[in-house]
Amino acid sequence: MIYNEIINSINEIKNLGYALSLLNWDQSIFIPKNGVMSRANVIETITKIAHDMLISDILYEKILSCTESNDFKNLEEFKQKEILKIKKDVEKERKKPTDLVKEIAKTTSLAMNEWEQAKKTGNDEKYLPLLNKIFKLKKEIADAIGFSDNPYDVLLDDYDENLKYKYIEPLFNSLENQLVEIINKIEASKKHIKDDFLLRKYDKNKQWEFGLCILKKFGINFDSCRQDISTHPFTTTIGEYDVRITTNISENNFIKGFFSTLHEGGHCLYELSVNNHLNSSPFATISSLSLHESQSRFFENIIGRSYGFWKNHFNDLKKLFIENLNNVTLDDFYKAINKVKKSPIRTESDEVTYNLHIILRTQLENDLINDKINVNSINDFWHERTKKLFNFYPKTKSESYLQDIHWSDGLIGYFPTYTLGNLISAQILNAMENQMGKVNDINDEKLINIIKWLDKNIYKHGSFYSSMELVKISTNKDLTHEYFIDYLKDKFFEIYN
Amino acid sequence: MIYNEIINSINEIKNLGYALSLLNWDQSIFIPKNGVMSRANVIETITKIAHDMLISDILYEKILSCTESNDFKNLEEFKQKEILKIKKDVEKERKKPTDLVKEIAKTTSLAMNEWEQAKKTGNDEKYLPLLNKIFKLKKEIADAIGFSDNPYDVLLDDYDENLKYKYIEPLFNSLENQLVEIINKIEASKKHIKDDFLLRKYDKNKQWEFGLCILKKFGINFDSCRQDISTHPFTTTIGEYDVRITTNISENNFIKGFFSTLHEGGHCLYELSVNNHLNSSPFATISSLSLHESQSRFFENIIGRSYGFWKNHFNDLKKLFIENLNNVTLDDFYKAINKVKKSPIRTESDEVTYNLHIILRTQLENDLINDKINVNSINDFWHERTKKLFNFYPKTKSESYLQDIHWSDGLIGYFPTYTLGNLISAQILNAMENQMGKVNDINDEKLINIIKWLDKNIYKHGSFYSSMELVKISTNKDLTHEYFIDYLKDKFFEIYN
Repeated sequence: MIYNEIINSINEIKNLGYALSLLNWDQSIFIPKNGVMSRANVIETITKIAHDMLISDILYEKILSCTESNDFKNLEEFKQKEILKIKKDVEKERKKPTDLVKEIAKTTSLAMNEWEQAKKTGNDEKYLPLLNKIFKLKKEIADAIGFSDNPYDVLLDDYDENLKYKYIEPLFNSLENQLVEIINKIEASKKHIKDDFLLRKYDKNKQWEFGLCILKKFGINFDSCRQDISTHPFTTTIGEYDVRITTNISENNFIKGFFSTLHEGGHCLYELSVNNHLNSSPFATISSLSLHESQSRFFENIIGRSYGFWKNHFNDLKKLFIENLNNVTLDDFYKAINKVKKSPIRTESDEVTYNLHIILRTQLENDLINDKINVNSINDFWHERTKKLFNFYPKTKSESYLQDIHWSDGLIGYFPTYTLGNLISAQILNAMENQMGKVNDINDEKLINIIKWLDKNIYKHGSFYSSMELVKISTNKDLTHEYFIDYLKDKFFEIYN
Repeated sequence: MIYNEIINSINEIKNLGYALSLLNWDQSIFIPKNGVMSRANVIETITKIAHDMLISDILYEKILSCTESNDFKNLEEFKQKEILKIKKDVEKERKKPTDLVKEIAKTTSLAMNEWEQAKKTGNDEKYLPLLNKIFKLKKEIADAIGFSDNPYDVLLDDYDENLKYKYIEPLFNSLENQLVEIINKIEASKKHIKDDFLLRKYDKNKQWEFGLCILKKFGINFDSCRQDISTHPFTTTIGEYDVRITTNISENNFIKGFFSTLHEGGHCLYELSVNNHLNSSPFATISSLSLHESQSRFFENIIGRSYGFWKNHFNDLKKLFIENLNNVTLDDFYKAINKVKKSPIRTESDEVTYNLHIILRTQLENDLINDKINVNSINDFWHERTKKLFNFYPKTKSESYLQDIHWSDGLIGYFPTYTLGNLISAQILNAMENQMGKVNDINDEKLINIIKWLDKNIYKHGSFYSSMELVKISTNKDLTHEYFIDYLKDKFFEIYN
């Protein structure tokens, strides 16, 4: 049957993807230094084979003969949707000119090197032409694939299917206004929160054990998962029932390691669950990066930085690190891990100010891809907007647009998923609380019920729905920034009186 | 140029091989339990793709048009040999009927399960028909590929190119007679060697550190290599300049872990070096499994179990494990690690008796593949031969033919490489000593000179020569058992007076 043949081909491509995940995982953790060059060749070979398989005429003809046959309507609806999803993905890939794809790979590879240099030295003379080329090539990709409104939409679609800039723009504008208001009020409160005890010496092994213990309370089954240490924490799926997470523990910064662990733990729960529910269907994957991020942020922030969580776990932590926390109360601790501090660096920002970075970056991406501004004006743009949003100027280029790796790697359209994830997580919390009651006393049982709710309402659907559809289905409302703003106000106005 | 196209294709296939090595490495060390099923699918997909690429008409036509063109003779000789080697490998694979290859994969997969059961319970009723089928299918493969004398030669060729049974048979017969003589003399000496101190508690971390320290003295560069722990130690190459070795350390058995480390260290030196010399040539691989084994045995036995090595290292070991070795002299230690003890189990045997197991197994393989005996007679054969070779009977089937995994995995023709490796290692030692003088005081400098000699005379050739050619070139003589017998006599008659 042609349906089975198509699914088999897609699963073969998925298997190549699993191999690539392992090659990358190993490269981030275990590879000996001199193995890196050869690893790049292995990754290139498999990526090329997987791509050739995806765009092959044989597969595409099968898909067409399936969807165009009279039998197609007799196929169960789920299977029809599977084939149509594959058709969309295949057609998108087939529209990309091979030479253009190669040119992008070559350019980003050069840009990655120059970006590292530029970030170190602050001199972006050699980097800017490459960045310019990346945006130009990405625009060409968008042209080749086609769009109705905005070429940026084609790039957004890579990370969040069917997402449009005309949808994000007003959402982010309202969000910006309200965030700035909240930050002004917090600053006006002049309240000082002590957090020096978070930066004392925390034994690495004990940090590791505590993090692992919480992941186990999330119900993560370590027969289907493992955690390792890497420089930059990440989650990757290497096979059905084989999800790998990493964390990074720093001896003098408790929150960095712990919240990384929770963040990846959230990703892990989602990845593990889609496989449990959908197994070898093409829908056995996350709906979008926004939704993925909503889950990591949910566990990192909404759970992990909540009073209700620490009410149940602070004593355990205190026992482990009595030397640092002896005179620290639950209240002190809760406030310290939620301290609001404007930073020029996105990844060092708190729940409130973080999204301003994304709003800035998203607007810039859209302007660049639409030739509204030129790469040479990025720094001016960044200065002006930073002043407006944060009321300071970045001191160096590594504090401005050079701080993040994404663009050099060709990831344009990726940034908005971080803030969308935050908005989704708060809207999900609201829906959850409407059904389960307030999530304000997070003991082990409550934790399991929360995860059961997510499993039933979010995870089990895999990528059957786009994230905006899934938000609507699981929360009964279109995505809005209001739940997130309410969440911030409730939480931070209390902390800052 | 067509030469480059062929080499590029072969290197793509090699890259898939590297990915498979990583998938297997990870499965032996890190995979979470539930990831195993999905991993099997990933391995199957990539194996199939690599095989399809190797036997593709496009590649074969390129090879033919290269070798048959008038330009071929103008190609430098090395490149001609590369293409002819590829041609031979491709033609061998193309001759294997696809259905037969699939049938073997299916049968061995079933046989692996049944073998595990049979080994545990001693009941081989369900296993024997599968084993019978494996031999039958392997015979069919040999028929499909073709042979002049003996179908077994086709299987031997998989592990040691151009090796023939008519060459092994007389070599192993003479070896058998002389080994039995040596063992009789050792037994007649009635000398008791104390070795209880090897079985005391040796701290695992200190064992790991000591092993690593010796590997570093071998000049192994850990920027191109890493060592981990696995149940069964192995060496695998995951990329150019990326060789992974594993060891297994047991707290109550010092020699097991340490000699595993040296064994894999020998494999590692060889694998690392062929890449250094031949880089992306198809000859950048070991010559054969026999030669590979000659290197692991060289470092495990000829170096690692020599008086000259411990003369220079026993004091370091004693300092580390003073609680166990306080009253043990260098002489006691040397004799203990060389104690001769006949065992029904191959992997637990010493340097002298080990080869009798291989001689028995090789003869049995040849008889089975040539239908001289039937699988139902294996046990009778094993009993009779064990009695003759060892003067005892195996107590159970897991002490007889069920002890090893190889046949269940379809590895027929693999066993002789172990003994050939032993013979080669002794012949290499002789050639080395003719040039460098006696290897009897193995300090750090001597160790480096030994490895330089191997690098220059063996490793740098990669698989350009077959192992028998390479033995001839590097030692000036065809392979014989005499150097090995002389080595054993010198060493063990002294130990046993």
